[in-house]
Amino acid sequence: MAEAALDALRERLNRFHALNAAAGVLDWDMETRMPRAGAASRALQYGAVLRAAHETLVDAQTLRLVDALAPRFSRADDESGDAALWRWAERETRRRRLLPAALVEDLARATARAQDVWAEARAKSDFALFRPELERVLALKRRQAEALAPAGDLYYAWLGEHEPGLTTADVDRLFSQLEPGLSALARAAAARAPSARPPALSGRFDVARQRVLGEAAARLIGFDFSRGMIDESAHPFSCALSLGDVRLTTRYDESDPFSNVFTVLHEAGHGLYEQGVDPALADTPLCGGATMALHESQSRLWENLVGRGRPFWTAFLPRLREIFPSTSALGLDEVLAHVNRAQPSFIRVEADELTYSLHVLLRYDLERRLLSGALRVAELPEAWNAGMRARLGVTPPDDAHGVLQDVHWSAGLFGYFPTYALGNMISVQLYEAARKARPGMEECLSRGDAQPLLSWLRENVHRHGRAFSAEQIVRRACGGPISAAPYLAYLRGKYAA
Amino acid sequence: MAEAALDALRERLNRFHALNAAAGVLDWDMETRMPRAGAASRALQYGAVLRAAHETLVDAQTLRLVDALAPRFSRADDESGDAALWRWAERETRRRRLLPAALVEDLARATARAQDVWAEARAKSDFALFRPELERVLALKRRQAEALAPAGDLYYAWLGEHEPGLTTADVDRLFSQLEPGLSALARAAAARAPSARPPALSGRFDVARQRVLGEAAARLIGFDFSRGMIDESAHPFSCALSLGDVRLTTRYDESDPFSNVFTVLHEAGHGLYEQGVDPALADTPLCGGATMALHESQSRLWENLVGRGRPFWTAFLPRLREIFPSTSALGLDEVLAHVNRAQPSFIRVEADELTYSLHVLLRYDLERRLLSGALRVAELPEAWNAGMRARLGVTPPDDAHGVLQDVHWSAGLFGYFPTYALGNMISVQLYEAARKARPGMEECLSRGDAQPLLSWLRENVHRHGRAFSAEQIVRRACGGPISAAPYLAYLRGKYAA
Repeated sequence: MAEAALDALRERLNRFHALNAAAGVLDWDMETRMPRAGAASRALQYGAVLRAAHETLVDAQTLRLVDALAPRFSRADDESGDAALWRWAERETRRRRLLPAALVEDLARATARAQDVWAEARAKSDFALFRPELERVLALKRRQAEALAPAGDLYYAWLGEHEPGLTTADVDRLFSQLEPGLSALARAAAARAPSARPPALSGRFDVARQRVLGEAAARLIGFDFSRGMIDESAHPFSCALSLGDVRLTTRYDESDPFSNVFTVLHEAGHGLYEQGVDPALADTPLCGGATMALHESQSRLWENLVGRGRPFWTAFLPRLREIFPSTSALGLDEVLAHVNRAQPSFIRVEADELTYSLHVLLRYDLERRLLSGALRVAELPEAWNAGMRARLGVTPPDDAHGVLQDVHWSAGLFGYFPTYALGNMISVQLYEAARKARPGMEECLSRGDAQPLLSWLRENVHRHGRAFSAEQIVRRACGGPISAAPYLAYLRGKYAA
Repeated sequence: MAEAALDALRERLNRFHALNAAAGVLDWDMETRMPRAGAASRALQYGAVLRAAHETLVDAQTLRLVDALAPRFSRADDESGDAALWRWAERETRRRRLLPAALVEDLARATARAQDVWAEARAKSDFALFRPELERVLALKRRQAEALAPAGDLYYAWLGEHEPGLTTADVDRLFSQLEPGLSALARAAAARAPSARPPALSGRFDVARQRVLGEAAARLIGFDFSRGMIDESAHPFSCALSLGDVRLTTRYDESDPFSNVFTVLHEAGHGLYEQGVDPALADTPLCGGATMALHESQSRLWENLVGRGRPFWTAFLPRLREIFPSTSALGLDEVLAHVNRAQPSFIRVEADELTYSLHVLLRYDLERRLLSGALRVAELPEAWNAGMRARLGVTPPDDAHGVLQDVHWSAGLFGYFPTYALGNMISVQLYEAARKARPGMEECLSRGDAQPLLSWLRENVHRHGRAFSAEQIVRRACGGPISAAPYLAYLRGKYAA
């Protein structure tokens, strides 16, 4: 009887998961392949699929099954896979049953349309073009927050979509630990003269060869191309359509061979997480990264702690020189100095490790003011620029380098940005725990073998999928809670010197 | 009140359409981009989307709305768009409500899996690998037919999915008009010595240049690349994801520059139909080709009546010579003789105009025997080869050139093949009606202007979408019913000389 109920629940949850993955295919196609003339209809298709997913999850029969199984699984210390699945279902149905299906569909349609308009607005640096779309998305996101948190923490309604388990108060506490130290380090860096670009990097770097270089970087850290691929898009992203189909995108800058490499390392970091989930969880809602902060901890770990370090470049510099012979005079120390220079800049995704989180703090602040009504969309470009001056000491030359740079808000991804800074913190905690557990891992990495690090991450993070919260995974893997201190200490060691 | 009911029905029908289009995106991606390791999960995703579409169409509320609106729209001569939509809904719900949702989902999953295995089996020419998949698909298709036609014409349950409006008896009657004349012409052609390959066609033809040539052919006949694209896949196909997003695929043979050109003309013929639907029908279930026979009439018209004719090559030969200078010695008559040679061969999609329909008649015969139980899947390769000998006088050297050549059965597309031969018949009826209505159209075509023909097709066929049946469209456009006689007369004029 209980087995039949569990099977019936599992079937519905897996169908929800399959419909979400299908929406992922639509989204991937929209970003990489679809002609713009298809955008309006695609918004309807995307809305219909996400509505069907929502209705599958919150229909009366699913809710009855979740309730019926509560006595069996409500012990919080039950670590069985079935209990983890039930807990996921209990949490998600409790949250999502508060949302009307029409709102889910409207939001999906509005964000699909807004992303299309955002791309044009960014290309033209024309905020006025984007403004009505953003206003529409924000109004729907506010209705969503009000439906989810009728009496409580409104911002958590956004945050919890990406980071279930952390409250807005948790984020405030962690960010208040981070900000003073970070700002002081950034001010010191800004006062130093910018380092000159090595002459060997002044040429053009052919895109076809950059593609080979990016794939080599992904392969070095262990990305499995038989279960994934790298494509091209305006705004790089990764998506896991299934355990056997994990996709990344990158973009190419002909004047800079590093931009693509770091983009690939970042996105492949996400991809490794998705490829590393226990196959027993395949095609269930537990197949995927636990939270976005944990996901960003993986992308930032490979991009920064590995990708800007001496062991990685010891192994990878020969590949760069081989693929681009014009860099054959470039020395290891010169590369390390180049990829670790720190200077305030306009674009978050191109920011150095030191100033990166300041970009995030700005967005977090703006989102809270937009939600409370203290800031209107029309005032956003000015507030953005004022925030950049206050936090980073620079003023964007135009909105393309300012408020229009990120796709997130057009996609309805409010409450997402904090997870980047949280991911930075966690990345250092995990890297240090891994180094303690696998003392030879950096030596292996400098010989081109990332397996010791990757297998530790697989064991301690990836394989669990969504069976545990970010906080649980960090406590188990690192022996303590999520904390800003190790990250600040790491940055101080690197940039205060 | 009636307006509210109509709006509510329209919303549901459009959501059904959007979910089907979403399944189209999944399918397109599966054929062109997905890594094979993603196949098993993709089958689940595809099943979930098609199940959601089905449930949207046949849920109690949709059925109530269709019934409630019957008094308003049941007059068969009501040509309003609303009446056409209601008629479509009445027919499709009457048909689909007989199908259990679980069967729809099982069939979608089984066909997604079977297509993946079919591709491998064809590559290895290994029918044994494919056999269990085909048995599973056939068993589900038989259950589907039994659910749809509990007491009647079982084969129509398959046929009607692609060709609503024509019964199995109609097809039998049309094919019995076609077969004797066709067989006699084919026997006469087989007795003639095969024509030699022009020496200018003996080289290698670079794929990148073939891509340019194919795009030039599509552009010449009017395909709109701002609302579509050409990609590559193992089995060429076309799909309309929306009015603004119509996709074709082709494949390249480095030893033959014509194969890709004819594939593109064929698939772009489908694409022109989809791009030509009245924008007022966009994002509704009436947006698309009326039936598959009409669809194939469009692809075969552009591939054969245009693409193998003197006017087209008068305009296009200079492009071929320009892109492949090695063909600059090739004369117009030589090209026409080459692309119109007729000889029995193994592969349907590469068959000449004369023998093509014989391949179809074979498949129609085998499908009927599979459905009745007179033929088992295990016996299929032998029955295929025997049928090829009897109808075309040739024996396939292996199953890759025989029973494994087509994707259709793996995709559950039983009852589809007849529409190719019906499309051949209709293509001649429409082409002749167009030539009568636009006497200068071939002269325009020989100057590279396909608009007179295209605009006639737009007016008389494309714009109507699914508002009328194939028979209605042919009667209006050509002044008579679908008939084999014009097609046979055309073939006689061309091949009996």
